[in-house]
Amino acid sequence: MSLRVYRLGVLALFAAWITAAVAQTDPLPSWNDGPAKQAIIAFVTDTTREGSSDFIPEPERIATFDNDGTLWIEQPAYVQLAFAVDRLKALAPLHPEWKDKQPFKAVLEGGMAALAASGEHGAVEIIAATHAGMTNEEFRRIVKEWLATAKHPRFDRRYDELVYQPMLEVLAYMRANRFKTFIVSGGGAEFIRAFAEDRYGIPPEQIVGSRISTKFERRDGQPTLFRLPQVDFVDDGPGKPVGIEQLIGRRPVAAFGNSDGDLEMLQWTTETGKRRLGAILHHTDGEREYAYDRDTIFGRLDKALEAAALDRWIVIDMKGEWKTVFPAEKR
Amino acid sequence: MSLRVYRLGVLALFAAWITAAVAQTDPLPSWNDGPAKQAIIAFVTDTTREGSSDFIPEPERIATFDNDGTLWIEQPAYVQLAFAVDRLKALAPLHPEWKDKQPFKAVLEGGMAALAASGEHGAVEIIAATHAGMTNEEFRRIVKEWLATAKHPRFDRRYDELVYQPMLEVLAYMRANRFKTFIVSGGGAEFIRAFAEDRYGIPPEQIVGSRISTKFERRDGQPTLFRLPQVDFVDDGPGKPVGIEQLIGRRPVAAFGNSDGDLEMLQWTTETGKRRLGAILHHTDGEREYAYDRDTIFGRLDKALEAAALDRWIVIDMKGEWKTVFPAEKR
Repeated sequence: MSLRVYRLGVLALFAAWITAAVAQTDPLPSWNDGPAKQAIIAFVTDTTREGSSDFIPEPERIATFDNDGTLWIEQPAYVQLAFAVDRLKALAPLHPEWKDKQPFKAVLEGGMAALAASGEHGAVEIIAATHAGMTNEEFRRIVKEWLATAKHPRFDRRYDELVYQPMLEVLAYMRANRFKTFIVSGGGAEFIRAFAEDRYGIPPEQIVGSRISTKFERRDGQPTLFRLPQVDFVDDGPGKPVGIEQLIGRRPVAAFGNSDGDLEMLQWTTETGKRRLGAILHHTDGEREYAYDRDTIFGRLDKALEAAALDRWIVIDMKGEWKTVFPAEKR
Repeated sequence: MSLRVYRLGVLALFAAWITAAVAQTDPLPSWNDGPAKQAIIAFVTDTTREGSSDFIPEPERIATFDNDGTLWIEQPAYVQLAFAVDRLKALAPLHPEWKDKQPFKAVLEGGMAALAASGEHGAVEIIAATHAGMTNEEFRRIVKEWLATAKHPRFDRRYDELVYQPMLEVLAYMRANRFKTFIVSGGGAEFIRAFAEDRYGIPPEQIVGSRISTKFERRDGQPTLFRLPQVDFVDDGPGKPVGIEQLIGRRPVAAFGNSDGDLEMLQWTTETGKRRLGAILHHTDGEREYAYDRDTIFGRLDKALEAAALDRWIVIDMKGEWKTVFPAEKR
């Protein structure tokens, strides 16, 4: 045995030693010891143990997570809509014509409820006014500045404090077991990229989301990607498997969602005849967060709840399964 | 110091030891000790050394590589076109009407030259007939089967044997230094995904390419992504920075290309005021490969060669800088 091989052997030994030590601590401390926690741990254990009949090789360990309502709060409205309304208000002094022009007038007066009621055409106009006409770099800076100051109306906390502590633990646990974690969201990819690396440990290249068109062009001599007022791709419902294929090019082996917008992603992930993990977060905790499923505008959960029984997805009962909802620390 | 900290210290020591041992071997043995090799090594060394003024943190080490003419051969025509022509011939017995219908008639009789001459409209029709009407999974299988048998007309070798050995070394060298390597190609993403993981060590989630539209739908009860005869995105020229932003969401710090189709990608990568690496492979070796730049249909290099001087990109003179072109081993 050469010295080099000997060194590698010693290295492997130490690595195994440390891994074993880490594995003995509870990877999901904010979860009660209920069926959801048990199912998540069983899946990860069974698919990562060499020799297991359910073993999944590392390169194929792709885990996808919806964002709104799965990793962070989505009530009383998607956070990105709150951003759009605030942005519209901030820009209003530069656009006196909005006072008499729909859908701007309605949203400036009525806020998010008016935005939700403005329909698809209204939404596109609001997106054009608030999300386009700048470079991607500028847009991310604007989102970051907004997140640093905006507060949730009920909890009076920054939105990026209202992520789900139990889900942060799932992300870390799966990554520790060599799963690659991706966000697959109906929200805007660039919006999510503004905070996902810092908040979830998920880098920009692992964010699949909706997109507006961008154009490569020089501005003041510098190459930029300029955001155009035109929807390019909607990463929701049947769009989620399409977005997954565009960006990831592999079928996930685990997927977490919470609404009908995640139905096709979970079907695509789990209906393979192999051991897979599908999970639906059911918002059942009106006291600590919100309780909603069929009768809500944002994050409606109906068909996907029916499909969960059929496809044997885990349904995570927030009230029963989670010891805590939000992280304690302030940002 | 706790036992745990002690163990981690020992682990780090061994890791550093092994890294140092590896670093002493030549990372680019197929390169002559010329200006290109020196510039690549200087860039990697300077941007990965802690404390260097050019240091780039690991998450930002994104390196992008064009495929046709940069990682593998693109003469006498793009490999994907050879695939399309062969596929058209294989399907022709099922389509007797093609004998009298353009552009099919021309391509069936004239091969790749006729395909190149058929213009954009013709190309779209050929793509529709050969690249759509099946699931993504089926398409990758068809490409794999084709690659296993098709031979290059001049070298009489499998196309995936005609990758550039010196570039395989660059990929491995950059990955060993914690750069994440991506392909950014005008070719089809799904076509490249059929062989890139096996051949280049680049996984599907790190392939940016052109796309046709896909649709999520059930076929025989199974969820599939079905390929539609419709171009969705062309990842070439000014499309490359757009594709990079869609899939990666970060500006690369190093980019390799060989044609005018890579111009904007290299500008986007290098025009930042920071230490960056842009490289153009100049095909100057008519004996071992091909010699071409301004006067070619596939891989035309004109503007990007002019820009190289202006933006201080490396121009890799294939004939002078490469000891070998293709790997020796058969697949």
